[in-house]
Amino acid sequence: MEFKVSQIAQILNADIEGSADAVITTVCKIEEGIEGGLSFLANPKYTHYIYETKATAVIVNKDFTPEAPISATLIRVDNAYVAFAKLLDFYNQLKTNKKGISEHAYIAPTAQVGKDVYIAEFVSVGDHAVIGDGARLYPHVCIGDNAKVGNNSTLHSGVKLYAECVVGNDCIIHAGTVIGADGFGFASQNDTYLKVPQIGNVVIEDNVEIGANTCIDRATMGSTRIHKNVKLDNLIQVAHNVEIGESSAAAAQVGIAGSAKIGKHCVIGGQVGINGHITIGDHVMVGAQSAIANTVPNNQILLGTPAIPYREEQKLLVYRKKLPEVFQRLKEIEKRLKKEE
Amino acid sequence: MEFKVSQIAQILNADIEGSADAVITTVCKIEEGIEGGLSFLANPKYTHYIYETKATAVIVNKDFTPEAPISATLIRVDNAYVAFAKLLDFYNQLKTNKKGISEHAYIAPTAQVGKDVYIAEFVSVGDHAVIGDGARLYPHVCIGDNAKVGNNSTLHSGVKLYAECVVGNDCIIHAGTVIGADGFGFASQNDTYLKVPQIGNVVIEDNVEIGANTCIDRATMGSTRIHKNVKLDNLIQVAHNVEIGESSAAAAQVGIAGSAKIGKHCVIGGQVGINGHITIGDHVMVGAQSAIANTVPNNQILLGTPAIPYREEQKLLVYRKKLPEVFQRLKEIEKRLKKEE
Amino acid sequence: MEFKVSQIAQILNADIEGSADAVITTVCKIEEGIEGGLSFLANPKYTHYIYETKATAVIVNKDFTPEAPISATLIRVDNAYVAFAKLLDFYNQLKTNKKGISEHAYIAPTAQVGKDVYIAEFVSVGDHAVIGDGARLYPHVCIGDNAKVGNNSTLHSGVKLYAECVVGNDCIIHAGTVIGADGFGFASQNDTYLKVPQIGNVVIEDNVEIGANTCIDRATMGSTRIHKNVKLDNLIQVAHNVEIGESSAAAAQVGIAGSAKIGKHCVIGGQVGINGHITIGDHVMVGAQSAIANTVPNNQILLGTPAIPYREEQKLLVYRKKLPEVFQRLKEIEKRLKKEE
Repeated sequence: MEFKVSQIAQILNADIEGSADAVITTVCKIEEGIEGGLSFLANPKYTHYIYETKATAVIVNKDFTPEAPISATLIRVDNAYVAFAKLLDFYNQLKTNKKGISEHAYIAPTAQVGKDVYIAEFVSVGDHAVIGDGARLYPHVCIGDNAKVGNNSTLHSGVKLYAECVVGNDCIIHAGTVIGADGFGFASQNDTYLKVPQIGNVVIEDNVEIGANTCIDRATMGSTRIHKNVKLDNLIQVAHNVEIGESSAAAAQVGIAGSAKIGKHCVIGGQVGINGHITIGDHVMVGAQSAIANTVPNNQILLGTPAIPYREEQKLLVYRKKLPEVFQRLKEIEKRLKKEE
Repeated sequence: MEFKVSQIAQILNADIEGSADAVITTVCKIEEGIEGGLSFLANPKYTHYIYETKATAVIVNKDFTPEAPISATLIRVDNAYVAFAKLLDFYNQLKTNKKGISEHAYIAPTAQVGKDVYIAEFVSVGDHAVIGDGARLYPHVCIGDNAKVGNNSTLHSGVKLYAECVVGNDCIIHAGTVIGADGFGFASQNDTYLKVPQIGNVVIEDNVEIGANTCIDRATMGSTRIHKNVKLDNLIQVAHNVEIGESSAAAAQVGIAGSAKIGKHCVIGGQVGINGHITIGDHVMVGAQSAIANTVPNNQILLGTPAIPYREEQKLLVYRKKLPEVFQRLKEIEKRLKKEE
Repeated sequence: MEFKVSQIAQILNADIEGSADAVITTVCKIEEGIEGGLSFLANPKYTHYIYETKATAVIVNKDFTPEAPISATLIRVDNAYVAFAKLLDFYNQLKTNKKGISEHAYIAPTAQVGKDVYIAEFVSVGDHAVIGDGARLYPHVCIGDNAKVGNNSTLHSGVKLYAECVVGNDCIIHAGTVIGADGFGFASQNDTYLKVPQIGNVVIEDNVEIGANTCIDRATMGSTRIHKNVKLDNLIQVAHNVEIGESSAAAAQVGIAGSAKIGKHCVIGGQVGINGHITIGDHVMVGAQSAIANTVPNNQILLGTPAIPYREEQKLLVYRKKLPEVFQRLKEIEKRLKKEE
């Protein structure tokens, strides 16, 4: 693949500062720039690399003002990160898309399979399952009875979709993720546990992306529901009857306990724990490793275990480090008072 | 499916308050009650929903005293949660049970397979493995050489049981769980690591349920042992040589380090970490995200990092939030003393 | 299998204290010693067991000085743990090694497969993939297009290696681990997210061991890189563009955010979280459940959330437990001052 800077600028509707004829053959990170490489600068932390990068061209924001000479050609756009993402997408689509149904797949005779699908070897599709047009099931995917995969959704290798669960259109589910295992529900009885059957399902709406080895349990009754545009990272636990609102995102290893409701446009940091049976409002941000114990209103930024407003927790962390000083000051005061006696 | 309230009351040996002839066609949550729906009320937090639910009937405890009129028919039992669980179980069993051995499964000629089993497509059963009567292996289950699955146990899609490991009778293991991977044992040698071979196994006793994508490592020597009636949630780490006592339960993302021994009837909250080589007594409860650093006697309720008795940690959390006040008070005292000088 | 103590001592170049003719038939833990068993003593916590063990022989360090009579024969070596590991390895290799390619595997015609490999039933090997000599792929392994597995590496059941990712020589990857899923990269655009294509890969160097159900995401560009001799436990999250230096080790459930760089010979405790875009020096140790927020120099021992030097955090934990005392002392001082007025 080979593009001139001028071609790229045209795709991005961008201004060029430097050589419009420079040739781009690959993409690279700004700190690992190479001849022929195209990079981008979005995070101000990385600004210093632009003065020494060996990349041939760098996409920058329109308002970027260099403080020293730059050898790379600059491609100026409104949002460098978004522009770069668009280019990568374009580049990515040049890879061939797999199509067809492997003769080594198992598809139940009662299943319904759309057109233009990719169903790889060793995929298992259960009774009365429905696979939408353009869906892509990689090796070792298992689709349970009556389960449904929407149009143009991709399930990577080893994804397990239990019976009756639903994945919407245009979703991406990464390898090893389990959707629809039984919720963790037991009633204590005498000295042991009685299993509470989990007869609900999981509904994943459109345009959701889920990372690898994440678990989303089916509801006891009704549905565990992941609303549209939600993005979940790897190794996340979503318990039964949880609801995650539209366009919310959670980083890796987050755990959400049963029946918690999370609002829209929330951003949950890695390893956060969220208590069961609580409600989190819209536009809530939670710092990594925090624990949300109680219901949270809209528009909060939280941190800590248990989580409190971010600024308050930051202040407490500063005070905590001064604890030795507290004891020193107390000692001095007491000494002084003793002397007075 | 259609039942009269009177039929349900008969199954549950319950008293009816309202219409015995009302018709139930589905189950629903009390807060999402619908015409024809049967619900239950066990958690007092949900009591207020009973006065407005549209469910046709609600199972309640015998001692429930309404404080306002209720339109739903009440079905009174000793324990509403247990009664509802029983009903769901009944309802669940009406789903057809799969049986038979797929022609697309691989079963080693030396393996021993019981009667009335379900072995799905793409299951692999290794040399000298033993599969008990009525066992159910979903697609992509892998049973290692000499491993054993007890009677009536269910291994969901993609469960991996390594060689020589043992699952008892009446167990349920959810999708993607790995039993018997090598424990994390390395001896430092010069500047690198020497692998310590892990030649023990895992023994899961009867009536254990394990969630999805959980990992239980084989012992270095001897057995990592999960005693009967234990319930483990999703994404849990159980290291080599751990022992979990009868009827204990752990929520999602708990991590238990090597050689820790956990007693009977313990309840471990989500994301808790348990140190290696320690012993936890019976009837110990641990709050979510806590860290257990040291051995714990029986009958404790613990919280915090490191965990201390629950009430003590709750008190410290209150004091911690008052840290700014401490500095304010110290400042005032010092000012006053300074003035005295 | 049956060995005399003298034979074992010869393999280990060890001194014998007791019966050189005693017969060893199995290995056992010192606290669960049995007739015919060979055990070892490396951890001082276990020393007291040596006086009562029923093991026939125990491997000990040369400098071990008994404080009471011991019935077991002692086998004295420089490092008891390393010596025992060597023996186990020897014992382990007596198990037969599987070889051959199953007729139930799928290998793309364009893939390149070395000699002396084991490729089990239901393994899928993609287009142009390369499988090195002596590599072992257990059932349900999936090797993506253009991916590469080095010589003598073992991928246990259900490992998923995405397209273009590379595993070096002499690696062991445990069941269910996912290598090369897309990094979690999205650009906010209006009220939703635009996926940033992840076009890099993962490179795992030689002699790396990775536990079960761990996730290592592919780089946005370039490579997520795990250097040689690294040891990762189960359920670990390694985000895109992370780099883990030579001979570092991480315990279960650690989470490492995007673009973090970890040095050589680091040891990271269980459930630790590491922030993105930071650098951790060489020889850094981090206590379990800590959170590393910022860049860390070489040779640190850290603990806490956020992590600070270990001794400092230990001191703060002691002071924290004395918080009630602080309020008591403040109250007394204020009372005294009030009386003075």
